[in-house]
Amino acid sequence: MLEGNDKITTRPFPQSQKVYIKGEQFDIKVPMRQINLSDTIDDEENVIKNDPVTVYDTSGPYTDPEVFIDPLKGLPIVKEGWRYQKEHLMTVDIPKPLQSDIFKREKALVAKEEHPITQRFYASQGIITPEMEYVAIRENCLYNKDKKTKSLHPDPMGANIPEVVTPEFVCQEVAAGRAIIPSNINHPEMEPMIIGRNFRVKINANIGNSALSSSIEEEVEKAVWAFRWGADTIMDLSTGKNIHQTREWILRNSPVPVGTVPLYQALEKVHGNVADLSWEVFKETLIEQAQQGVSYFTIHAGLRWQHVPFTIKRKTGIVSRGGAIMANWCTTHKRESFLYTHFDEICKLMARYDVAISLGDGLRPGSIYDANDKAQFKELETLGELTKMASKHHLQVIIEGPGHVPLHRIKENMDKELEHCYEAPFYTLGPITTDIAPGYDHITSAIGAANIGWYGTAMLCYVTPKEHLGLPNKQDVREGVITYKIAAHVADIAKGIPGVESRDHAMSDARFEFRWKDQFALSLDPEKAMEFHDATLPDEGHKTSHFCSMCGEHFCSMKASKALHKKTKETEEETVEI
Amino acid sequence: MLEGNDKITTRPFPQSQKVYIKGEQFDIKVPMRQINLSDTIDDEENVIKNDPVTVYDTSGPYTDPEVFIDPLKGLPIVKEGWRYQKEHLMTVDIPKPLQSDIFKREKALVAKEEHPITQRFYASQGIITPEMEYVAIRENCLYNKDKKTKSLHPDPMGANIPEVVTPEFVCQEVAAGRAIIPSNINHPEMEPMIIGRNFRVKINANIGNSALSSSIEEEVEKAVWAFRWGADTIMDLSTGKNIHQTREWILRNSPVPVGTVPLYQALEKVHGNVADLSWEVFKETLIEQAQQGVSYFTIHAGLRWQHVPFTIKRKTGIVSRGGAIMANWCTTHKRESFLYTHFDEICKLMARYDVAISLGDGLRPGSIYDANDKAQFKELETLGELTKMASKHHLQVIIEGPGHVPLHRIKENMDKELEHCYEAPFYTLGPITTDIAPGYDHITSAIGAANIGWYGTAMLCYVTPKEHLGLPNKQDVREGVITYKIAAHVADIAKGIPGVESRDHAMSDARFEFRWKDQFALSLDPEKAMEFHDATLPDEGHKTSHFCSMCGEHFCSMKASKALHKKTKETEEETVEI
Repeated sequence: MLEGNDKITTRPFPQSQKVYIKGEQFDIKVPMRQINLSDTIDDEENVIKNDPVTVYDTSGPYTDPEVFIDPLKGLPIVKEGWRYQKEHLMTVDIPKPLQSDIFKREKALVAKEEHPITQRFYASQGIITPEMEYVAIRENCLYNKDKKTKSLHPDPMGANIPEVVTPEFVCQEVAAGRAIIPSNINHPEMEPMIIGRNFRVKINANIGNSALSSSIEEEVEKAVWAFRWGADTIMDLSTGKNIHQTREWILRNSPVPVGTVPLYQALEKVHGNVADLSWEVFKETLIEQAQQGVSYFTIHAGLRWQHVPFTIKRKTGIVSRGGAIMANWCTTHKRESFLYTHFDEICKLMARYDVAISLGDGLRPGSIYDANDKAQFKELETLGELTKMASKHHLQVIIEGPGHVPLHRIKENMDKELEHCYEAPFYTLGPITTDIAPGYDHITSAIGAANIGWYGTAMLCYVTPKEHLGLPNKQDVREGVITYKIAAHVADIAKGIPGVESRDHAMSDARFEFRWKDQFALSLDPEKAMEFHDATLPDEGHKTSHFCSMCGEHFCSMKASKALHKKTKETEEETVEI
Repeated sequence: MLEGNDKITTRPFPQSQKVYIKGEQFDIKVPMRQINLSDTIDDEENVIKNDPVTVYDTSGPYTDPEVFIDPLKGLPIVKEGWRYQKEHLMTVDIPKPLQSDIFKREKALVAKEEHPITQRFYASQGIITPEMEYVAIRENCLYNKDKKTKSLHPDPMGANIPEVVTPEFVCQEVAAGRAIIPSNINHPEMEPMIIGRNFRVKINANIGNSALSSSIEEEVEKAVWAFRWGADTIMDLSTGKNIHQTREWILRNSPVPVGTVPLYQALEKVHGNVADLSWEVFKETLIEQAQQGVSYFTIHAGLRWQHVPFTIKRKTGIVSRGGAIMANWCTTHKRESFLYTHFDEICKLMARYDVAISLGDGLRPGSIYDANDKAQFKELETLGELTKMASKHHLQVIIEGPGHVPLHRIKENMDKELEHCYEAPFYTLGPITTDIAPGYDHITSAIGAANIGWYGTAMLCYVTPKEHLGLPNKQDVREGVITYKIAAHVADIAKGIPGVESRDHAMSDARFEFRWKDQFALSLDPEKAMEFHDATLPDEGHKTSHFCSMCGEHFCSMKASKALHKKTKETEEETVEI
């Protein structure tokens, strides 16, 4: 079992320090990572200080050397004292068998009957919550202080991106249902974040064991790696034994919102017999997980009985696990899905904990052949209908999207989602753009993800190199998360999120000046960058060399260009202009 | 030193056999890889044969078990007997010090004075060459036989893609300068291929040692890996010692066209002193390399003296090695580039060997900050001017492009290239879409590459994970090549190259039927796919399991969906249609 820091990665990133920005309206402190850079020595040997680069930080207290991490105790509470919801909340006893001995949780919070407590409810009243100020500060990443790095000719594709994110803007976006702040009242360890088309593109990492493989310890460390490398949310998709206990461990140690697919646990409860699934078992599972602190549930309520025949002519049928389960249930019982018929009750129940609903795309394509077909788009229309229903309960809603789509057919997915789903945030899995590269599906899907992120998708669910082949290990999680940070960042640049290019520009400056250590520190994965550099030039002296082994000393274009730079400056006037 | 097969990878791909398709007009045999699939067992236990999938094959004789490979002897001759050019050719003695003892090359072919022998010349006369029929057969990949796999709603973005590629179509495209068949008359080991917007997107892999690292043996094996995993051409960018000898080894063992940047060797000849470079040294180098068999030269003739000041305000100056050298030369001598002033002579000389010219983008951006700037686009306009000049000599021309460009600014590059360069094939390096991920630049650039390939780029120069950090080893070459095969294939699907999706569809069928071995065989990288699968389920029995460790047996959606498939078919009539 995990003890102290033994099996958990806690080291900070090189040249980086955790900074906390205080709120103006609320007593909050918002974590960011400040990357400190070395000095520039110019042509005349003058020393010029370089401003540090402050970046969005999902890694939680794990990278703060001031915080002692003990996974047996869980993370410190972030949201304590924000009890503006307090008068509308009450506590309930967690049933004995579901209490956690280790974390000593006997009671959970729940809204008093019939009083909404979701972020969306407050937003609809024009009330700014601490969560809203928190995410506003977080999104700005100090750009609001200097407004230095301007976006270069962005193409927001219809997004409405403000120069500075204010709490008022956040409030307005949440009220309109264009953004959500997943924020279960029973997950106080969480650092709030926002998912919406007019904010930074977010990424999700799926973790969780299958019946075949992986232990609780491994899953907690995988989760910690996911935060470390940049996951904005994680989904615990465990399906094996100890599903409740695994989730408890993950939640108590997670600084990011945690999502689940409650149907998986419901199916465990009926011993894997799809036919035995019922609204009662499902409802019980929702309550259990809501009381633990899960911030969003994927629910495949849009897959209706009548959609099932549309999948017959597909190459790969139904590839969503939840979708396949529900299609089987409908077909077996010859009845409409209980998720659809009980949708109002589901919304009511989730709203009491402010669990957001992620409307699952049970009919997403599992191959490029099946992309954008009738099954997929009929379900999407139903998701739109459900979005409207959920809104009546002030529920926060996101819409799940594909999957497998060839490059030129991706935009249609975004357009249709905006058309049918009232601009609710889109949350896509990739999409994978070709089926022929198992082992490289982080890449086949990053191509799709960067594009759909640019077009307006608010959150990208990662794909690891093990997709279609096996359960990812922690190195796969790292590879998947970094790949998706790339896709999200590429989309942010294209959309023109203000200030987001400062890290690129600092990297380019460090490159041109051969500040190798600064290059590593500014990298999405400093450890890999350094490892690759050192593979051929390990000596400390080569960390300041004016070349690397790719081209060698005499063929380094940067080196030649630097020399030229000086010379051209001096002779600029003599040169003919065209 | 290399002996026999010892250090060279020659194993064929699993379930794959080399097939050779004969020409109708000429005595040629065009290699392809036929992937044989196992049978489908349907719901009623009927055995259904699956058609093999035939794919484009760049791996040369290395994957043909019938051919004995000895790198000391070089590859068998492919183009022997195609001497339609014969009456216009003569032989010249290779200067003694440049002769290869090992490969016994004392003479080289050259066109008789003033008689054009380029593929483009023949095309302009309406003459179909064996090369043209060869590439036509190769491009079709047997799609012309069955026309089975139709493209689904492609978006060719202005490309003019025929359903079947005929030798006549090839001839017309080459004549128009919209495509090239790089085909030095001194590289008879080469299997002809075509580069053009209306054909399959090609990829290039850079290999070559730097002064700091790598031996000839390593470079030959790197080249073999590049062909094996899918490189359509390679560039030998060696800059260290033994530059001539390394190239000889690579050429004699290469089934794909080889490109170089002759300036690198010219600089070696003047001991690295840029100021000492001259037209004479450069010319001598061109002849030396043309006589060895290099099929395209990157020449940075578009970088003019007057362009240099435009780079002053850049973050990363000039990042093209050739560009930096020539800018330094111009600035030192205060003179126009000798590549520009001698351009006509260069063209004349190259035409005599049918070496294609790849007009280098010496001013390509080295950071997203510098993308699409005046320096870059002024040079592009000059490349257009040079394209026109080269065409007069019937030279085959391609245009090099960036580099580093944010996602939303990529299309402008393609549009401007088409506008200024008479639709000559575009050949881009990535582009990289963000600067913050060293160690993952194969991915940051694959995002750009897939998009620009879709927009019309004819060949994508790969980027390996070591980019910006060090010299790639053979594993990096594999990773880079596979990543770029993905980008090119994704672009081919988007553009609608007929039949190209057959491999995707076969993969999807194999997935849905749990034919694991077929999935591996159909993968771009069968070895990695199998390794990843076997990491958790190594037993032979699991090669037919109806699940993998990702979801486990009870949560496999494919398995559930398959069961459902049968059930739904039976009850389809009962279900209400919407």
